[in-house]
Amino acid sequence: MRNVDQEFEAQLRAGLPAAVFRPLTSHYMEEPRGQFHGSDGLVLAPGTVDEVSTILRTCHQASVPVVPFGGGTGLVGGQVMPAELCARPVILSMERMTRVRDIYPDENVLVAEAGAILADVQSAAEQVDRLFPLSLASEGSCRIGGCLSTNAGGVNVLRYGNARALCLGLEAVLPDGRIWHGLKRLRKDNTGYDLVNLLCGAEGTLGVITAASLRLSPRPRSVATALLVVDRPAAALSLLTLVQTQLGEGISAFELISGVGLAFLEEAGMGGPQPFKAHPPWTVLIELGLGGVGQAQAALLDLFEAALEKGLVSDGVIAQSDAQRLALWKLREEIPLANRHVGAISSHDISLPLSDIPDFLARADALLAALDPFRINAFGHLGDGNLHYNVFPPKGRSKQDYEDQVNQIREIVYGLVHEYGGSFSAEHGVGRLKTSELERFGDPTRLAAMRAIKQALDPKGIMNPGVLFAHTS
Amino acid sequence: MRNVDQEFEAQLRAGLPAAVFRPLTSHYMEEPRGQFHGSDGLVLAPGTVDEVSTILRTCHQASVPVVPFGGGTGLVGGQVMPAELCARPVILSMERMTRVRDIYPDENVLVAEAGAILADVQSAAEQVDRLFPLSLASEGSCRIGGCLSTNAGGVNVLRYGNARALCLGLEAVLPDGRIWHGLKRLRKDNTGYDLVNLLCGAEGTLGVITAASLRLSPRPRSVATALLVVDRPAAALSLLTLVQTQLGEGISAFELISGVGLAFLEEAGMGGPQPFKAHPPWTVLIELGLGGVGQAQAALLDLFEAALEKGLVSDGVIAQSDAQRLALWKLREEIPLANRHVGAISSHDISLPLSDIPDFLARADALLAALDPFRINAFGHLGDGNLHYNVFPPKGRSKQDYEDQVNQIREIVYGLVHEYGGSFSAEHGVGRLKTSELERFGDPTRLAAMRAIKQALDPKGIMNPGVLFAHTS
Repeated sequence: MRNVDQEFEAQLRAGLPAAVFRPLTSHYMEEPRGQFHGSDGLVLAPGTVDEVSTILRTCHQASVPVVPFGGGTGLVGGQVMPAELCARPVILSMERMTRVRDIYPDENVLVAEAGAILADVQSAAEQVDRLFPLSLASEGSCRIGGCLSTNAGGVNVLRYGNARALCLGLEAVLPDGRIWHGLKRLRKDNTGYDLVNLLCGAEGTLGVITAASLRLSPRPRSVATALLVVDRPAAALSLLTLVQTQLGEGISAFELISGVGLAFLEEAGMGGPQPFKAHPPWTVLIELGLGGVGQAQAALLDLFEAALEKGLVSDGVIAQSDAQRLALWKLREEIPLANRHVGAISSHDISLPLSDIPDFLARADALLAALDPFRINAFGHLGDGNLHYNVFPPKGRSKQDYEDQVNQIREIVYGLVHEYGGSFSAEHGVGRLKTSELERFGDPTRLAAMRAIKQALDPKGIMNPGVLFAHTS
Repeated sequence: MRNVDQEFEAQLRAGLPAAVFRPLTSHYMEEPRGQFHGSDGLVLAPGTVDEVSTILRTCHQASVPVVPFGGGTGLVGGQVMPAELCARPVILSMERMTRVRDIYPDENVLVAEAGAILADVQSAAEQVDRLFPLSLASEGSCRIGGCLSTNAGGVNVLRYGNARALCLGLEAVLPDGRIWHGLKRLRKDNTGYDLVNLLCGAEGTLGVITAASLRLSPRPRSVATALLVVDRPAAALSLLTLVQTQLGEGISAFELISGVGLAFLEEAGMGGPQPFKAHPPWTVLIELGLGGVGQAQAALLDLFEAALEKGLVSDGVIAQSDAQRLALWKLREEIPLANRHVGAISSHDISLPLSDIPDFLARADALLAALDPFRINAFGHLGDGNLHYNVFPPKGRSKQDYEDQVNQIREIVYGLVHEYGGSFSAEHGVGRLKTSELERFGDPTRLAAMRAIKQALDPKGIMNPGVLFAHTS
């Protein structure tokens, strides 16, 4: 593949306004986990879909690789291209296409450009009394185009689905520069292959999303939050069944918190005051939002009593105010910060069939304990079968002491996940970090079909090379 | 493309059990609307995914075309291949792969083979106190593989999504015979391109679905149904907004019924007794299902009162018993039968941005009235923006009298739909019936991408030729 050279840059400058050309800063070369460092790319920030088209067409003709860049918050390195792959690629930043183009409250539809910050999309929906339910830790800086391209998850997936489920239509540019005008505001349009879902989750390897029509929801009228203590993961799963039987689909979050996580929060001085004196081994954060019928707080109290009676929970708190609700959420939300403070040896964003989670945890914990007395913080979106299973050094040791065991730990975790038919990447994607896991654990027929589609839509392989598929040329 | 000949059939017989070979009956050559007649194919009904693989591999090697066949209920001719295209193709019927393989109530997952009848999947879910929400007129005979391949819709899409939204994983055979083992029971698995959604809705042109893991839901604990009278479509849309504000996402059906439809029911002696003396110009059938919290009937009464107060509705009934609920549904469900009794000149399964529906109806009605005093029955899934806009002859005339105007009528309807950014096929698919509409109204970049994907996955073009893309060789 060709690097951006003077001739190529001159060609671009001839066809694009000066505002498109941006200075390269470290922002475009770093990713949150520090595992990949980007090369000295040419940063282009187009202001229109036509400019994106010009850029891709030019890159396609010259076989110059392109790294699409959203908020830069991805956790698998998809947003930076290491110099080994290409010393000077085009870094295509969506930072100037940030408008919410239209809102149709009565249709529950919002049309946003790819560079719109997720929190701004949420606010725009809230201003018309609607909910855009995608919600993640990085919502203040991630951009909606990146959320869609990586099929982001977060805390509301249980009720509202992941990013794919929230996208009704796309405006996108294919690798050769052709524009797809697909910003439909339709709930149903059954006319051929599902390109929306193909581009969502493609991690920038099949083209560039420039705008999306997004599905809004009615805002729940009554919201309540509880933190309930369970003695083991199996009880948490029985509680989930009870919750769904008793409260239907009003549950928007069902998050597992481990005693290790609560201890880490305390150790790091994070998360605020804790509601329980000891660190219960397992707690579950539940959020219920009801639309007009019923009072959520009373419904959670009924749930708590039913769960106590069945012996599923032993203790719990139900927030009595918005301040208390936020305090409970703060515990959950600051666990990743506390984890970073302690320093994980290895982190795993996994999903499993729900019923297999207790067995998986017991077996994974035992296999790791046989190596060393690691501290394990397993937490996250239990309602979706998605756990962040993170392994930490014993107290008094640091992650640096275990660098030579990282592969062994990962092998144990992913091997077990695969045995249970789970996923080695539930919500973070594959990026550059997990291409070898995809190669190893992915179904060979599915991988062959993915390669065929990649070759068909991006024959020159310019779109985000090294992402999803390890680069081999 | 090669026909099945003696040599080819002998090759198949050598590799497959005798039970796979079935007699050809008219069942495999007809479709419900009688617009396409299938050719004399060789009917194969495999019992296992390996047998499907053997069949496709053999067809691929010999370039023999394959028509996948489910329940045969599709409305766009995707299930029959006319003799002009191929005099003797393979008809691949899923009728022997009908098992519900597994149910995981606590995971809300059911795994079924492609030939399972939709109603049997619904029953299997109900037996473990869960809901499989896909519900359509043909549910007693359509097969789940066909529902997924055509991305079927129906009456519960508003709340639960169409077939695509209910599919978690697939077992499928690609055109060259390779098997994809993808029956994951995971809610989140973010590892590359979304092949599930690509095969769902591909109408058998990219491979054959042999089994699926399906998403179940909790069963609503309290269900109520109302039929409310509105004086115009715009009031129905305001009512929809009120419904969603007041009742959130518990609404599973929001169906428009026209006065013309009620008159047709009376004319045909169908639909049972009608609740209103005259035929109100527009009524809306609403179904609410609440999960544990609140009483649906009381909630619908509150809604009715609020809507009366706002002047959105003028009359209405709320079912007081299950028998009354079913009676209201019978009105809605027998409209298509009454339509067939009257005889439509032209039927259109369209969707529109919700806000544009009143304008569309006014303009389409006026344009058609300028031609002739047609009777127009516009009805269906208003909550999804999906209407069945069907045009009938004036009283005393028959559809045969208007055969030369069919194209003109279709032109008016689809032209307007396109102007509003709507779809010429909201839920029935493209099949063989609407390939020219797809060619004409589809975004050219999207069509090019679809063709590239088809070519990549089915390079010999053996899978359901003539469906989605008009056959040109």
